[in-house]
Amino acid sequence: MKNILIFDTTLRDGSQGAGISFTVEDKLKIAKALNAFGVAYIEGGWPGSNPKDELFFRQAKKLRLSSKLTAFGSTRRKGVKASDDCSLKTIVASGVPVACIFGKSWDLHVKYALKTSNEENLKMISESVAFLKSKKMEVVFDAEHFFDGYKNNKKYAFEAVETALNAGADIICLCETNGGMLPSDIQNAVRETLKTFGDVKFGIHTHNDSGCAVANSITAVEEGCVMVQGTVNGLGERCGNANLCSIIPGLQLKRNYKCVPAKNMQKLTELSRYVDEIANLIPNDSKPYVGRNAFAHKAGIHVSAMERSSETYEHINPKFVGNERRILVSDLSGKSNVVSKANELAMAIGGAPEQVKKVIETVKDMENKGYQYEDADASFFLLTKKALESFKPFFSLKGYRVSVEKDTAGNIVSEATVKLDIKGKEEHTVAEGEGPVNALDNCLRKALVKYFPEIKSVVLTDFKVRVVNSDANTAAKVRVLIESSDSSKSWGTVGVNENIIDASWQALSDSVEYKLIKSKKI
Amino acid sequence: MKNILIFDTTLRDGSQGAGISFTVEDKLKIAKALNAFGVAYIEGGWPGSNPKDELFFRQAKKLRLSSKLTAFGSTRRKGVKASDDCSLKTIVASGVPVACIFGKSWDLHVKYALKTSNEENLKMISESVAFLKSKKMEVVFDAEHFFDGYKNNKKYAFEAVETALNAGADIICLCETNGGMLPSDIQNAVRETLKTFGDVKFGIHTHNDSGCAVANSITAVEEGCVMVQGTVNGLGERCGNANLCSIIPGLQLKRNYKCVPAKNMQKLTELSRYVDEIANLIPNDSKPYVGRNAFAHKAGIHVSAMERSSETYEHINPKFVGNERRILVSDLSGKSNVVSKANELAMAIGGAPEQVKKVIETVKDMENKGYQYEDADASFFLLTKKALESFKPFFSLKGYRVSVEKDTAGNIVSEATVKLDIKGKEEHTVAEGEGPVNALDNCLRKALVKYFPEIKSVVLTDFKVRVVNSDANTAAKVRVLIESSDSSKSWGTVGVNENIIDASWQALSDSVEYKLIKSKKI
Repeated sequence: MKNILIFDTTLRDGSQGAGISFTVEDKLKIAKALNAFGVAYIEGGWPGSNPKDELFFRQAKKLRLSSKLTAFGSTRRKGVKASDDCSLKTIVASGVPVACIFGKSWDLHVKYALKTSNEENLKMISESVAFLKSKKMEVVFDAEHFFDGYKNNKKYAFEAVETALNAGADIICLCETNGGMLPSDIQNAVRETLKTFGDVKFGIHTHNDSGCAVANSITAVEEGCVMVQGTVNGLGERCGNANLCSIIPGLQLKRNYKCVPAKNMQKLTELSRYVDEIANLIPNDSKPYVGRNAFAHKAGIHVSAMERSSETYEHINPKFVGNERRILVSDLSGKSNVVSKANELAMAIGGAPEQVKKVIETVKDMENKGYQYEDADASFFLLTKKALESFKPFFSLKGYRVSVEKDTAGNIVSEATVKLDIKGKEEHTVAEGEGPVNALDNCLRKALVKYFPEIKSVVLTDFKVRVVNSDANTAAKVRVLIESSDSSKSWGTVGVNENIIDASWQALSDSVEYKLIKSKKI
Repeated sequence: MKNILIFDTTLRDGSQGAGISFTVEDKLKIAKALNAFGVAYIEGGWPGSNPKDELFFRQAKKLRLSSKLTAFGSTRRKGVKASDDCSLKTIVASGVPVACIFGKSWDLHVKYALKTSNEENLKMISESVAFLKSKKMEVVFDAEHFFDGYKNNKKYAFEAVETALNAGADIICLCETNGGMLPSDIQNAVRETLKTFGDVKFGIHTHNDSGCAVANSITAVEEGCVMVQGTVNGLGERCGNANLCSIIPGLQLKRNYKCVPAKNMQKLTELSRYVDEIANLIPNDSKPYVGRNAFAHKAGIHVSAMERSSETYEHINPKFVGNERRILVSDLSGKSNVVSKANELAMAIGGAPEQVKKVIETVKDMENKGYQYEDADASFFLLTKKALESFKPFFSLKGYRVSVEKDTAGNIVSEATVKLDIKGKEEHTVAEGEGPVNALDNCLRKALVKYFPEIKSVVLTDFKVRVVNSDANTAAKVRVLIESSDSSKSWGTVGVNENIIDASWQALSDSVEYKLIKSKKI
């Protein structure tokens, strides 16, 4: 079983995707999830081009990840000493063990993008790699546009690779930057390149512009590449990067390569959905291996044959990747990872087998209504406690009213009133806020703080809203995800309703209830 | 230039996709579009299994299509004469020139799905093909699960193919029914099969369960297959069928095969979007070649290099497939993105250099306030027009009021009132909605529709909310992104405010203003 180095660039190249805008907090969460999944490298960002990425590296170092944190950058600028180049210095300053730098291997780019000579470009490669090596870093050299270079000026493309190797690069990653190549292009180029350079570690980095990024990556590995660069769910610019959620199971389950620890493969679906959730993207249900429909069967002939032998219409057992079979006629199945989580949690709380069954039914029911618990651990905890009837509410809602008014002068006033029953007393409060949800939040706290002063320390750190169904309009259901934290911990809650205000109310009240339950150690 | 027969099965295998439910009218529209695009075969349905499909064929014959209409079905049932088999008789009765029937080529399926002997299955193939040939039909034989059969019992798989050929089948289509194969599996199997059978026409039919359907189809053609079965946008069960919108340009633009008339290639993007619209699916913006983001550029380095030579970061000219380049504006971009997009647009509108500078300043200013335009082309357009002072508003807001009230019984009522100045008249409307944004939207439309009936066709297709800064709480700014569409086009708008209601108002009113400006061709 040959090891393949999985080099995840979700946080760097993936963040170039349209509509993706990770906060530092988002990036730290994804880094933790990737580390738990067991990828070899996590490319965290481009510290030289983005101050947010410098902050990420400072914080990520504290996580003590097993995956190798990697900082990205380019070769030095033309006409500058490597040791004086700001971008290279920032990579070193980030304090991570691995640098991945890209350099030009296509002469057209040297001319048009760098506007310098072919000789100067080779010097830029050589001196940059040597500088990073002198700082004791592991160096991955991304040969940008290698395949276009190979096609148009093979001699120069090979010179670029040779130069990086001579300067001490540990791995040469062949990049299919424009994404337009077909598998036979990759097969021929990788075969000749590996034969030419002999005993050198090569990697592959592809984009999906021809719809072949997964196939191109797998083909390159079959031709001898030992590293695959890609992103979770294929996030990335234009048509996306190579999708690691398709490549990893393809290589590991079908070709006997080892990409991640075998026991982690069944966390693949969870990883995919977690990243979509953080990126605030509606998951594509048709995604290979991890999509909600990847093992969904509609055609009558399929379903009846499957009952006899599952192998007949399934290329792998969905459990291998943590996914599950769905029969589309009766759409009542919950997600197995959630079911197993509910099982685990209910037992930890001390539920009897009968009660655990009830918890699972409740979870499935809520999921069918549009709730999603991947990033809402606190709501999941409350749901479980409620299903086990071991939850004693701290307050109950009698009603609320929220209004937002904009006048002719453009001034906006948001006001909320909330009527609660707390320990048998009616509390009726009114508050204004920056917006309707903030007004509601202020109102809720105003009523509760007299009874439970500990909620003072709770702050809302994130607020995300998503339309639940795909053919949605503003009248469709919305899902609100709120993240809260106090001085020591953060937690997520979820609410779903046709009405964004009520969905927000659910997530707000779950957040407060979770805090109270944890403070009381009930 | 070798001809490849494009066999479209959007209306048959594509309709198995989750959430797809074509009416007869839908199917006729798609058939006309496919015919205009120039595919060789249109598989219209399975008349023996679906009465709707029989009706489709009756009506489709009146369209006098150039593409060959094809009816799908299975080999005869076991123990029945082919001439007595209902399904085969219905294929003949449909009156189309081509029959495509599937038969088992994997012995496991003969055992578990058919529950018959290997010999009887071969008879079923032979007699069914011979019966259809006796009715003067062209016969495509779909060798179901051929690649699994090849792997597990090659002798029997070849016998199935041989049997169909001996009975007179015109084309043998090798089907990768479970979709789990990788390109090298296809390469090896097709190579040996074609060598074994010599001068026979073979086709390829793949599914995307391993993420390789496009690559697998292209690989099979490079190995000598002359027919490709697939669907527009890769519609289909589980992870979908092979996506013809990726395969056709791959083969025709990159490998010199002829799939459709050259002049039609630039209709590809239109075809893709049309089918998504009829299927009522939100188009996947990352789709190769035809997606809205397929030629969208975000990273600053890319954009500045592209201005020098477009070849540097684009695998093909987007015009070849009727798509277009988009410059995304975002926080990751160096200045060059914003400048280049604003520049392009401002000059198209006719701004003088001084004014263009002003547009750029405005965009930067808005970005600092949290606006994001990469997915909000319509707001960007309005912003540019406003900065150039070439925008004449259709209405102006005098004020709005929104309220959401939840009573003790748990009932929720959302109401909005809006006061607008339209063409000098004050319009004061009130409406309820499923939530506050829907109520506001209803109110706005109610006021405007009297003056501008064209806004009736506008629907909101997506609604996303995100807190702008990372250390946010509900009092921080929220960004609302709305996607709208009418019958021909979709556009994005954005609003930012501390108040989610006002941010939504901005995005809603931008959406309507954009529609009006485009309708008036101002």
